[in-house]
Order: sequence, then C-alpha cells, then structure tokens
Amino acid sequence: MQQSKREVLFNDAHLWVKEAGDIIKQSFITELNIQYKTNFSDLVTNVDKQVEQFFINKIHTKYVGHRVLGEEGFGDKEITTEGVIWIIDPIDGTTNFVNQQRHFAISLAIYEDGIGQIGIIYDVMSDEMYHCRSGEGAYLNDRPLSKLEKKPLSQSLIGINASWLIKNRKIDPSVLTPLVNEVRGIRSYGSAAIEIAYVASGRLDGYISLRLSPWDFAAGKLLIDEVGGVLTKIDGEEIELLKQNTIFAANPSVHEKILDTFILPKLK
Amino acid sequence: MQQSKREVLFNDAHLWVKEAGDIIKQSFITELNIQYKTNFSDLVTNVDKQVEQFFINKIHTKYVGHRVLGEEGFGDKEITTEGVIWIIDPIDGTTNFVNQQRHFAISLAIYEDGIGQIGIIYDVMSDEMYHCRSGEGAYLNDRPLSKLEKKPLSQSLIGINASWLIKNRKIDPSVLTPLVNEVRGIRSYGSAAIEIAYVASGRLDGYISLRLSPWDFAAGKLLIDEVGGVLTKIDGEEIELLKQNTIFAANPSVHEKILDTFILPKLK
Repeated sequence: MQQSKREVLFNDAHLWVKEAGDIIKQSFITELNIQYKTNFSDLVTNVDKQVEQFFINKIHTKYVGHRVLGEEGFGDKEITTEGVIWIIDPIDGTTNFVNQQRHFAISLAIYEDGIGQIGIIYDVMSDEMYHCRSGEGAYLNDRPLSKLEKKPLSQSLIGINASWLIKNRKIDPSVLTPLVNEVRGIRSYGSAAIEIAYVASGRLDGYISLRLSPWDFAAGKLLIDEVGGVLTKIDGEEIELLKQNTIFAANPSVHEKILDTFILPKLK
Repeated sequence: MQQSKREVLFNDAHLWVKEAGDIIKQSFITELNIQYKTNFSDLVTNVDKQVEQFFINKIHTKYVGHRVLGEEGFGDKEITTEGVIWIIDPIDGTTNFVNQQRHFAISLAIYEDGIGQIGIIYDVMSDEMYHCRSGEGAYLNDRPLSKLEKKPLSQSLIGINASWLIKNRKIDPSVLTPLVNEVRGIRSYGSAAIEIAYVASGRLDGYISLRLSPWDFAAGKLLIDEVGGVLTKIDGEEIELLKQNTIFAANPSVHEKILDTFILPKLK
C-alpha cells in the first residue's frame, strides 16, 4: 500500500476508533441514568450493533470498495483476502463490558490483499490506544513500544483463561496445566484483544486461547509483529487470517520454550 | 472507637496512603531512568521496605502505642488483637509490580481490639482508592459503593488464580473446577487486595484464594462488610484476623450458592 494512502487511512481509523470509544462511554452515562443497570446484556448488544454500524457508515462513505469484516454476518458469504478489508470488533470483552463496564476494547485492523497494514486496539475505559502501521513500530498512545527481549519462562506472566485448564472441547487440559507451576504467574483479563496488546507491550509474556475469531486477533497480530513477538496457532503453525484459530501470542523466547517443552511433545 | 478520633486517624491514613503511592510512582521514574528495568525484582524489594518504613515512621511518630503489622517480622513475636493495630501491605501484587508496573495496591487496615475501624485499598497506577470507616459505607474515590444485590451464579464473574484449579497443596482441584463452567467467567488479576476491592465494587462477584495473610485481606474484609458482602474462610467459617487464612469473598447470594453447591458437599 502507498505510504501516503496508508497515512490517510490510519488517521481516519485512529479518529473513528476514538469516536467509537466516546459513543460507548456515552452509552454508559445515558443508560446508567435510565436505570438500564440491571440489564447490561441488552445494552451490550445494542452498543455493539450501533458501533459496528458507525464504522460501516464511515468506511463505506469514504472508502468505496473497502470491505468490512465483523461479527455480524461472518460466515454468511464467501470471504477472500482480496482488496482492502477492515476487520473490526466493536466491543472485545463483552462480559467485562456487561459486568464491569471496563476492561473491554475496540479492535480494528486493515489488511490489503492479505497483508497487514494498520492495527489498533483501544482499551476504552483506560484510554490506552495501542496502534501500528506495519513496519513502522508499535505505539501505546504516544509512547513507542520496545522490542520484546529474551525472558526466562520462570519470570513470565501468561494470560490463559481458566476454561483451557479444565476439561474442555478444544484441548486436553494436561497440555497447559503443567505450565502453571513453571511460570511466574497466570492472569486472565477477559479480553483477547487487550491480552494480545499486553503481550505486545510486555505486560504479559504470552497469551493462549483455543478459540478466537479474526476480529479478536487481526489487529493484535500486527502489533505483535512490530515488537518482534510471535503469534501463531497453538501448534506453532501460521494462523489463517479469515478463519477461527487457536492463538498463541508471545515473546519469542517464551513462545519457543512453551512450544518445545509443553505443547509439541503432547500434541504430536 | 470515638468518632472524632477515628476521623483524624482516617484522614492521616488516607493521606499517607496517597503519599506512599507517590513514593512508589516516583521509584519507577527514578529507576527506569537509571535502567533498573532489567531487574525489577530488586526494585520491588527495596520499594516494599521503603514504603513499609515510611508508614512505620509516620505511625510511631504521631500514634505512640499503635502497633504495625506487616509482612516483615510477621511471625517473630506473639501477636494479639489488643489496642490499635495497623495492618499494612505496602505492595500487594508484587509480581504485577515487577512485570507490569501496574495492577498492584497498597492495603491498609486499622483495627482496635480486634474490631475493624478503617479499610483502604489503593490501586496506585489506576488512582483508584477504595476506602471505608466501618458502619459508614464504602467508597471508590468520592463515589459511594452500592450494596451488593442478589445475582444468579450464571451471570457472575469470579476471581480465582489458576493455581487453585490444578493440583496443589491446599485443595483438591475438583472442588473448584466445576465452578468454571457454571459462572459467566473466571478472572485473575494477581492482587488479592484489588480482587477483594473488585468484589466490594461489583466488578467481580466473588474471589477465592487458598492462602492469604492478614495484610492481604484485613482492609478488604472491612470494605466487603460495608457493602453487605460476605468474606469467610473457604468453608464459610469466620476468618482469624491475625493468621493465614483461606479466603472466600463474595456477593452474599453468590457466596451462599457456591458454598452450598460446590464447596461444602466436597469438603465434608
């Protein structure tokens, strides 16, 4: 993609994400005032749709021919990576949205012919915007993120949801449970986008999920690439951008160690 | 305790916690500048001691006869609940401090003759101060916290560290693992004080840990009491203030349900 074209795209994407964040925050104020409080589940559905529509309108008005991939309608039609695609999750971490009114994010990625161009993850309530243009480094708000440095597993913090440590349909829990005692700690925040952004910023050293959709990881993948991290399927294979995937994002030394010691010997 | 005496005590405690937060934040700036970055483990030890000493100096200068109970020196001497005791954790969530430079808290409680008077938990980097004077309600910064309302388990978020869901020395994991699929979600933030404060503010509906020390839960217990929550040992029995305890803090309806359905039938 042309540098100048990408610059304009980035500025629009960045602005619209900020505006979408304001819409979401405004929804709390309005809805809390009218005592929606007891049914945040309805609220999340409405705000989710409203914000997705906001993006679709903006994009289709200014960028004719660009496609938008979001939760709604996914799977309805044949999807290819051709042309420019915006992959958007208006609210990643809906449970947190409902129960906590925080710890959720807007995730937005732009790919052209399957090549990542722009990644943005916005932790709305913390006002933390992670963003990158591929090849130009990643940022948290105005601060450039450092390249991830080698780290021993014993000093690492890993994000894993408890579901993957007990009996489940995706993985034998005995693959991941031995990891728990070998790392410094396990965390679970309830938003894949935020957790991948945390890996990019070094707050976590790894993040594992056995079931994520494109809008959960498309932006995070680009951030991870920029800081020299690794994001693959659980078995180390390359992810398929437009499909559900298992996801394993990590600091490169941590990724290698976990893969070689815990995952591959058990999976193969 | 006399109302006016408690007022003065609260104002001092509140101020000192704020000041201690500033000391901690300052330590990041200083140490990050001198490239301490690669060894945050040393930093946490130093800051922990420095902040504990800050509190001890302040308290012993102004409140002669008050005792301070903290991590250092705990277990060295016979401890009774007589008189006024300050129970302080200068940095709760040291792993987060080391790895994330956020998501840690100062926890401070004041008890007189075993009766809770003042509880403060300060999430330093989020600038969220949870505080209460017993019997007068709990607050998050200036906002009063609501009483916890009845909630179905299926809509609840529970804080449990992964360690208690795999083989461990404290509890048969089969006691807690069935819970994972019955609740809306499991979270793990890595600071007991913050997680108990989250229960008090409704961001979590329950929190379970199998090994906590007085300074981890003493302030949280008072916050939980103020919002009509329940904080007991894992088996529902009353905690012993000056001992290591298992801790189960929750919304009252969630506490009852988890205890009756998952814990008591397995423990007894």
